[in-house]
Amino acid sequence: MNKKLMSAALAVALGAGASLAFAQAKPEVLVKQRQAAMTLQGKYMGPLGAMAQGKAPFNAAVVARNAGYLEALSAMPWDGWDANTKDVKSATLPAAFSDTAKFKTAGDNFQAAVGKLVVASKGSDEAATKAAIGNVGKTCGGCHDDFRQKPQ
Amino acid sequence: MNKKLMSAALAVALGAGASLAFAQAKPEVLVKQRQAAMTLQGKYMGPLGAMAQGKAPFNAAVVARNAGYLEALSAMPWDGWDANTKDVKSATLPAAFSDTAKFKTAGDNFQAAVGKLVVASKGSDEAATKAAIGNVGKTCGGCHDDFRQKPQ
Repeated sequence: MNKKLMSAALAVALGAGASLAFAQAKPEVLVKQRQAAMTLQGKYMGPLGAMAQGKAPFNAAVVARNAGYLEALSAMPWDGWDANTKDVKSATLPAAFSDTAKFKTAGDNFQAAVGKLVVASKGSDEAATKAAIGNVGKTCGGCHDDFRQKPQ
Repeated sequence: MNKKLMSAALAVALGAGASLAFAQAKPEVLVKQRQAAMTLQGKYMGPLGAMAQGKAPFNAAVVARNAGYLEALSAMPWDGWDANTKDVKSATLPAAFSDTAKFKTAGDNFQAAVGKLVVASKGSDEAATKAAIGNVGKTCGGCHDDFRQKPQ
């Protein structure tokens, strides 16, 4: 492989984010990445909530796909979680930085509920899958209640 | 399950995004979600590029994890791709909306390269894995060259 060509291709590909590859990401970048994961959690959880509540037709294939995505997305905020993001403007409440054990537990509860949804979504029990969606929703709320500013 | 409670929990959890569950997402929301997927692609590709170029120590576990994330993230911009996002301000060039076949092919090339990286990352051939990372980088650049504004 031509390393010089590859380096150039990567620099083009990643744009301003290329520095990520070579240095500790800045707090503002970490927050942007964290928010991106939350945005996508909302994207893929929203339709499942509608299905569980009977507001949209149940679609097992979409549930299974979204559950798989949520499994990855539920982990993504954590590998970039850093105390140095405390002073970056975001919806994260100060409690996330002071009550870290409770915050981590709330995140773990979400990941565990998503894991159970992944399993349920591979079966053919619609009621069980809907219940698993509901449990994921509760763990979203359980974390947001204490650690996220209420939307204005 | 108590549907009223669950509905309330989901509304809290999803905040302003809750409307996503019940209606066609607005173009601005679709763009925000698309950008979130690109942000996270950068987050998880950046360190792999550094490893492939010898600028960071090779870490097989991180490569395998990130490759799995990239497999999901490379699909995520597409389920929300919609021509009605054409007029929303973003780095997407007009060509993405006019030369749709070429644009889709560029996206397919990226997803295929990521798929090959996932396979390589499960083996123990470091050189092959680094080559696969390089090929992913080229497909990032191949799409950005034609369909993304150059960073200012």
